[in-house]
This record gives sequence, structure tokens and C-alpha cells, in this order.
Amino acid sequence: MTYIYLDNSATTAPYPEVIRLTSAVMKEIYGNPSSMHSLGVAAEKTIAKARRRIASVIGVRDKEIIFTSGGTEANNLAIIGSARRNRNRGNHLITSQTEHPSVLNCCRQLEKEGFRVSYIPVDKKGVVNPETLGKLIGEETILVSIMHVNNEIGTIEPLTEIGNIVKERNRSTILHIDAVQSFTKVPVKFRQWQADLISFSSHKIHGPRGAGCLWIREGLLLEPVIYGGGQEKNLRSGTENTAAIAGFGLAAELSARANVENDGFLISLKLSFLEELKKSGLDFHINGPDPEVGAPHILNLAFPGLNAEVLLHSLEAKGLYVSAGSACHSKHPEPSHVLSAIGLDHKLLTGSLRFSFSGMNRTVEIKKAAIITADTASELYKMF
Amino acid sequence: MTYIYLDNSATTAPYPEVIRLTSAVMKEIYGNPSSMHSLGVAAEKTIAKARRRIASVIGVRDKEIIFTSGGTEANNLAIIGSARRNRNRGNHLITSQTEHPSVLNCCRQLEKEGFRVSYIPVDKKGVVNPETLGKLIGEETILVSIMHVNNEIGTIEPLTEIGNIVKERNRSTILHIDAVQSFTKVPVKFRQWQADLISFSSHKIHGPRGAGCLWIREGLLLEPVIYGGGQEKNLRSGTENTAAIAGFGLAAELSARANVENDGFLISLKLSFLEELKKSGLDFHINGPDPEVGAPHILNLAFPGLNAEVLLHSLEAKGLYVSAGSACHSKHPEPSHVLSAIGLDHKLLTGSLRFSFSGMNRTVEIKKAAIITADTASELYKMF
Repeated sequence: MTYIYLDNSATTAPYPEVIRLTSAVMKEIYGNPSSMHSLGVAAEKTIAKARRRIASVIGVRDKEIIFTSGGTEANNLAIIGSARRNRNRGNHLITSQTEHPSVLNCCRQLEKEGFRVSYIPVDKKGVVNPETLGKLIGEETILVSIMHVNNEIGTIEPLTEIGNIVKERNRSTILHIDAVQSFTKVPVKFRQWQADLISFSSHKIHGPRGAGCLWIREGLLLEPVIYGGGQEKNLRSGTENTAAIAGFGLAAELSARANVENDGFLISLKLSFLEELKKSGLDFHINGPDPEVGAPHILNLAFPGLNAEVLLHSLEAKGLYVSAGSACHSKHPEPSHVLSAIGLDHKLLTGSLRFSFSGMNRTVEIKKAAIITADTASELYKMF
Repeated sequence: MTYIYLDNSATTAPYPEVIRLTSAVMKEIYGNPSSMHSLGVAAEKTIAKARRRIASVIGVRDKEIIFTSGGTEANNLAIIGSARRNRNRGNHLITSQTEHPSVLNCCRQLEKEGFRVSYIPVDKKGVVNPETLGKLIGEETILVSIMHVNNEIGTIEPLTEIGNIVKERNRSTILHIDAVQSFTKVPVKFRQWQADLISFSSHKIHGPRGAGCLWIREGLLLEPVIYGGGQEKNLRSGTENTAAIAGFGLAAELSARANVENDGFLISLKLSFLEELKKSGLDFHINGPDPEVGAPHILNLAFPGLNAEVLLHSLEAKGLYVSAGSACHSKHPEPSHVLSAIGLDHKLLTGSLRFSFSGMNRTVEIKKAAIITADTASELYKMF
């Protein structure tokens, strides 16, 4: 069955070139990068090349990139690693209520370890107020962790303003940015943000699963989360996943290039989808930022009174794949913490779906997807 | 260049079938296992199948298998996860001096967190004395972690005796076994050992990098090491690496079958290698257990007075790939902690190499490898 995949914020289809490269590396460069013989050296060089590729796409130095098993682990290393390392400097952390579970649950764990965490609210569009955040920063604030793009509703956080106020209030507060959803789609302006740590994931940019990285500003020290043979500068032990890392490097390059060459393509998909949906006269509501303001690839819509799960499965039956509830673990039945945080009405909360686009989508299928959505929602409105 | 790969304890070449399967999963089953639509469900089913395959090879229930990013992370989850969870029961851990760095460095980290760790010595063959271990067990001993097969010298630890004495002294002491080196090569007798936790790795059994698992006896509770979306029963967050997990499942099945069908093949490789080497009249010493007693695939040899690194690179130049120093991170220049622990003379310590075999090796290349080793070592003896 042909289908239309609009769940790209959950995960993306790997590029064919990436699949070919990871297979080739598995077959030919299978040596342990720690081995002294040439099969080991070839693996080490493969990893070095991927590190250069990713560093170059971000615009940082390759020695500042630490590979992890994925975005979740990068967030763990950044947050838990900063907090445990800097316990002597203070015990206060700040994050927002709409962060990814891998950020929020690291913070909850740190609370158990005696840290104090401020979870700041967001406005109706999902935006953190830099002033509100600034007021919370004190002497003892060791870390601020704010995402670049929200994975459920696409809000782009005002990181330049946040960075300014963080560093103004406390020069030594570490600023961590979760850029898992934005990488290669919205520019990662690490200098302008005055960021210290940024998390990235491979499988959100058409790379293989099992790879991610943390950019660590030179000189910043972290406690590891995983201990062992001392790989990745002692920050992430375990035999390096050469094939996945190589695929991640290639995916970063291809994905960044695609988004430069097809500048405006993602937002054009979102806007055509919306236009088509509006034409149908369907009753729906846009959750979070205005379409032109939010990230180009994420659109969260509420269908008042409808049950999101029923709608999702009805769309699925027609070959359209989207997401309901929390983006990354949508089998949990709780209502989305992000939609709750933006104050969405219960009636809208339970009838919301996320449509997320990628460079692999085609304009023609987007229009078709909008028509399927309009028809299906209309049918359900009639039934209930 | 054709080469002979005898570094299988560092990592193995993935089976061609495994590479094909991981590529197919990346291409066709790329959905996020947490997504509710059928691409997500297909991914979930793929993981469930791999879990069943691995559980069946080990002989446990599939719900007792928790997937991790690899063996190092499985050891971290087992050791750090047990200790942090059971802090209220006691603060004492026991391990041996010859464990893998991922075990030893978890223990060192726990010492920083206030735990007390006993690192028990081994005899000249690398064997832990169960009596010595038993005497250390007290009321406050929450965990004993002993490896099944030593990765550097192939010692098989007396786990049945160790299990008996551990559970006799303290019924609630958790017994963790690192079976990364033994899986599918030496039977994992978890019941007989009375084990509670066992670690496994994919890339040591011709599976893809980026997958491993921890068997957790039903009912045993652990603290996670990585926090987030709650995947793997809240014990290992992060989007599951479907392709690597599928490849791991297939590799476990193929590797277990190969070792049943070709029972005795690995030990025959080791013994022919040794026989050929002896024929040459070369001066060498076997480190660790007697060849017939140790694990079938690992042979550690000392060439008195030679420098291991020089020998390794001379062998490499002739197309023979082996390992020097620590198995998993041989670029660290320190002498092997395992060879030190078995009391090896300094002259032997710096001239030791590990030859590790796999079912992919052929008898004819093993004989050739022995001749290359004998010739090369003889040349070096003449030079120095």
C-alpha cells in the first residue's frame, strides 16, 4: 500500500544513500575503532570524517562533538552531566514545562538527587518569556535547559534573548539547548545564543537510529552518564557505532544541503496543507504558534470534539500516517503535557493531531493528505 | 588485500544476513515504535520478534529482556542501576580485578557515590576463588558482579560455585554476570548460577553495533541510567534502534545455531593454531587458563622480550589482525589490568597478544596465521 508519511517529527525515513553507507561500513569497516590494526584505524577514520561533517554543518570544531546513542542520551549527558559535575557551585536548574520527556525526566531525577528545578510556564503559543526566566536565575543556578523547536507544536524559542539574560544574570550558568527537532531545519545559532551545550539526533534528519551527539563548548566539563572503556573523551563509553555515526554524518550533510537548496519547501508544504484544509470549510484550530512563525515542518491541529485516536486510525486506514498525543511516545494515554502547558481547552486537547513534514514529502501528496484529513474529520463529525 | 581477522573478541564481522536485515528494516520499518499508526506497530512487532529470538536463545522469558545500546550500557544499567536502587539495603559491592572496564569503572563511580567495593583478586589462570568471595559477603552486600568469560585471556569463572556461595551467605544479594564474551560460545546457565542480571552484546556475535541487552530476573527492580520517554519499561529511554535490535535477534539465532552445528569448531581453531605454533619451535607462553579449559575462542600468548605493539604491526603488515593490551580499548598505553592481575612477569606483560577466533574463521587460515606469527616473532627475536 502506498501511504503518506506525516510523522517526521517522531522519526524520518533514512536517505537511501545513508542506508547504503551504513551497510557498506558494517560490511567493510567493521573493526573496533579502538583496535590498533588497520581495520581499527579505518573505523576511527570513518568516525573522524563523520565528526567533521557534523561539526561543519553546525559550524563548530569537530573536537567539540561527542557522539552518543541518540538525542535522549545527549540530553541526559548534558543535563545530568552538568548538574552532577557542578554540584559544588549550586543546586538550581531551570527548564520549561514544554521540554521533551528526556529533558523533563532528567530534571525529575536530579530533584531526587537534591537539586531544585524551576519548570517555567510558556504562553499560549508555547513561548518561554525570557524576562520570567531571567528573574529565576541566581548565584546557585548551574544550568538552564531550553529547547530550540518544540517537538509537538513547533514553537521556536527566543534563544538569543534567553541567552542574553542568562549570561547577564550569571556568567557561569550553563546554557543547554535541545536542537533535536530543529537541526537542519531552523538555523542553530549557537554563538548568538551563547549556548554551551546543544543536543542533536540522527534519526530525525533521515539518518540511522542509534546515533546522536552533544556539542560541548570547549573547556566545559561534564560527568559521564555511561562508564567504561573511556571512548569519546571518557564522556561516552562503549564501542563506537561506526556505521550509525557514518550514516549520521552523511545525513547531516544531505539534510542541510536539501534545506538550503529547497529553501522554503517545508513551510510551503505546511501552508498548502493548511490552505487545502481551509478550503474544505472544516472546523479546526491551530495549536501553538502561527503557521508562518513556528518551525516550518510541524503543524499541530485540534478538531474540536473529535477523539484524536479515532481520527488517527481513520486517517491511517486511508494511508495517512500522523501522530497524536506526545510526539515521541504516543502510546502513553496521558494528555500531552505541551498542549496542557499552552492552556488548551480539554475539548481541543483530546482532539489534536500533529502533522510533521520532511524534505521527502511531495507537494502533491500534501494536498492529498489535506483532502483525506478534511473528508475523514467531516465524516467523524457527522457520526458523533 | 585479503587478511586474517583474529580480533573477534574486540568485535566481529556482522553476518551478511544481518546486514541485509538491518538495511531492510531501515528502509521498510523505519516508523517510531511508539507511533500509533501501522508503521509504528510494524516497528514494535519487529522489536518483539527480536526479543523473542534472544530470549529463546538464552532460555528466558522475553519480557525479562531489556534492550540497551550495547554491552557497556547493559553493564551500567545492571551495576549502577542495582546499587542506586538498593542504597537503603546496604552499600557494599563485590567484583573481581579482571572485569571489563565497563564493570570496573561503574564500580569506581559508585565508590564516589559512597558505596564500598571489594575488588577480589584472581589466581594465575584468572579464576575467582568462590570461598574468598564468600567470606566478603555480608548483610550490606547488595551486588556481586562477575564476568562469565574474561575478554582478554578467556578464563571461564566458576559461576555455579559463586552463585551457591553468594545466595547461601545473603539471599538478597543480587548476582550480575557479564556474559558479553561468552554468549553463544559458552552456555549461559543462568538457573544453575542463580543469576539475577546478565549482560549481552550484539557486536560480539556478528550482530550490528548499537544493540545489547540486559536480562533481568522477573521482579527485580533497577534504577534507570538514561531517563526520558519511558521506553523499555522505563528502564532505557530513547527511540528504540529497531534495525540494530532486529539484527541482534537474528545474529543471536544464527550464532547460537552455528555453534551447535559446528560444536567444537572454535576450540579446534585454537588448538590447531597452538599446534602449528609449537611445531615452529618458537618461544612463547600461554597467559591464563590452559587452552582446553578456557573459552574456546580466546588465546592470549606472551612472546618473552618482544614488544607487543611492534609484533602486532609486523603481523598486520602480513595481513594478520590481532589485539594487544586491553581488549576493548587497546589504544590506551597502560599495561593490561588482567595480565597484571594474574601476576604476569613484566617481560611477558609487554609482549602479549590476544588471538580471538570466530565461526567465520577457516581452519586453513588459522594454520596460515600460526605460521605468520611464528615467522614474524622469530624475525623479531633475531633483530632484538
